[in-house]
Amino acid sequence: MSALSLRFTKGHGTHNDFVIIDDLDGELSLSAAQIQAICDRRGGIGADGVLRVVRTTAFPALLALGDQTEAEFFMDYVNSDGSVSAMCGNGIRVFARHLLDEGLVDSDLIRIATRDGVKTVVLDDTGATVDMGRTELIEGDAQVTVDGRTFPAIGVRVGNPNAVVFVDDLNDAGALLDPPGLAPAEMFPEAANVEFVVRVGERHLAMRVFERGSGETRSCGTGAVAAAVASAGHFGDTGHRSEWRIDVPGGRLTVTLNGDEAQLTGNAVIVAHGVLAPDLLAVRA
Amino acid sequence: MSALSLRFTKGHGTHNDFVIIDDLDGELSLSAAQIQAICDRRGGIGADGVLRVVRTTAFPALLALGDQTEAEFFMDYVNSDGSVSAMCGNGIRVFARHLLDEGLVDSDLIRIATRDGVKTVVLDDTGATVDMGRTELIEGDAQVTVDGRTFPAIGVRVGNPNAVVFVDDLNDAGALLDPPGLAPAEMFPEAANVEFVVRVGERHLAMRVFERGSGETRSCGTGAVAAAVASAGHFGDTGHRSEWRIDVPGGRLTVTLNGDEAQLTGNAVIVAHGVLAPDLLAVRA
Repeated sequence: MSALSLRFTKGHGTHNDFVIIDDLDGELSLSAAQIQAICDRRGGIGADGVLRVVRTTAFPALLALGDQTEAEFFMDYVNSDGSVSAMCGNGIRVFARHLLDEGLVDSDLIRIATRDGVKTVVLDDTGATVDMGRTELIEGDAQVTVDGRTFPAIGVRVGNPNAVVFVDDLNDAGALLDPPGLAPAEMFPEAANVEFVVRVGERHLAMRVFERGSGETRSCGTGAVAAAVASAGHFGDTGHRSEWRIDVPGGRLTVTLNGDEAQLTGNAVIVAHGVLAPDLLAVRA
Repeated sequence: MSALSLRFTKGHGTHNDFVIIDDLDGELSLSAAQIQAICDRRGGIGADGVLRVVRTTAFPALLALGDQTEAEFFMDYVNSDGSVSAMCGNGIRVFARHLLDEGLVDSDLIRIATRDGVKTVVLDDTGATVDMGRTELIEGDAQVTVDGRTFPAIGVRVGNPNAVVFVDDLNDAGALLDPPGLAPAEMFPEAANVEFVVRVGERHLAMRVFERGSGETRSCGTGAVAAAVASAGHFGDTGHRSEWRIDVPGGRLTVTLNGDEAQLTGNAVIVAHGVLAPDLLAVRA
């Protein structure tokens, strides 16, 4: 595939935004510098990350991740800085919308392979629900330091590691221009997304998030799930099944907890289709 | 023209970025809400403003602005918040690059109509130089208040009004999330772009800018010219013709002053071509 004809789609879920690139036969190899150029909000298209659409049969590395052949497509998710993430709860909903819009699938129930296993997405008229799989608390007493203050935090794994901090006011996180400090290091060997959470009402939270590799974003699906899981424990919500409204800067997500399984619901919007100028990709690898 | 097929181009000059929309016959009427949706960096394409390409013969309002029939195309510039600006020195260079790329003109010397009169742009391999026309000092003692501090400022009109503040450190402007305070009001009845300028060396400046209607941007062409004009007076540079290097967060611009006339030189890059999804424009007017 020539860079001359690299087509893209732009979309977002609750303003967590993505450039989607179809590479069905797995021929593309985008360097971190090229990802950064695409995701640059003024020099490029601008996005929190790039979602590459690859047929599972064309991505041999999946074999090492377990049998994912039940899914026809693999979501290769890369953050705006070029680093890889296993899963993205907003991204996979937009990814599913794109597959259906483009006629790559013919059902609104779609199984998608990720580095965190196969996920199921169900699309409706405006939104999408993704089965986020099992969640687990990360053992240990975490601490997050931000804007010169240190807060206790709860570690939650939702595919990606997360650290959830309960604050009185979302402004307590400050400007969030730099990654918050995380301790102890052995609890978060791969770092973590950090969520700052305020309880608004019963099973209703407001949240800001600093994502590993992307900075503060307007929404984060795994982060919303982590916030619900941590809140269920923190506020003594012992129901087996519970539904949480999570207000993020980019809109509202709904998280359904069912035992240690979680589902995430929210909008999934395609904004534009286009072709990248070749010069944009002519950056040093 | 149906919103269903609204094509766009994205480009930037020193990371001052624009969505360009061809509307040669002047049939489009985009509301402020639609401009905001297009320019939203996460919910839309993202840009500092929208440049609409209209044939001068299809834009009758130009008659009120004087005879601009010597230019074939009019640049209708609208800020990301939907407000109109007379001129944009980075935008017009990208606009010219687009006209040549699309075969709308066949010369690399292009005359373009704007609300600030007809401007001439000369394209070379990587960049573009635009004749910014006459500049003038705005009489009065201006003051700019930012981050709790008040600084003296110099008012300069470069099509748009500007207020230039000399600071010791570009960080003196703080986070620049809100419009700086401007006084006296009668000096700036239409508000102004505010430039914070540090002298780096001889005829070499570094600058940050807060643009009316857009917030802090990575570059501003009229702002760079205003900074050079103010510096020439402030630092007693009395040469009739002088060339200034201006470092902005998005790169480097060159401003040439020749008496009270100014030229602006810098890169002009096309990043992508595409089609907007109809839903993006289905916002309340």
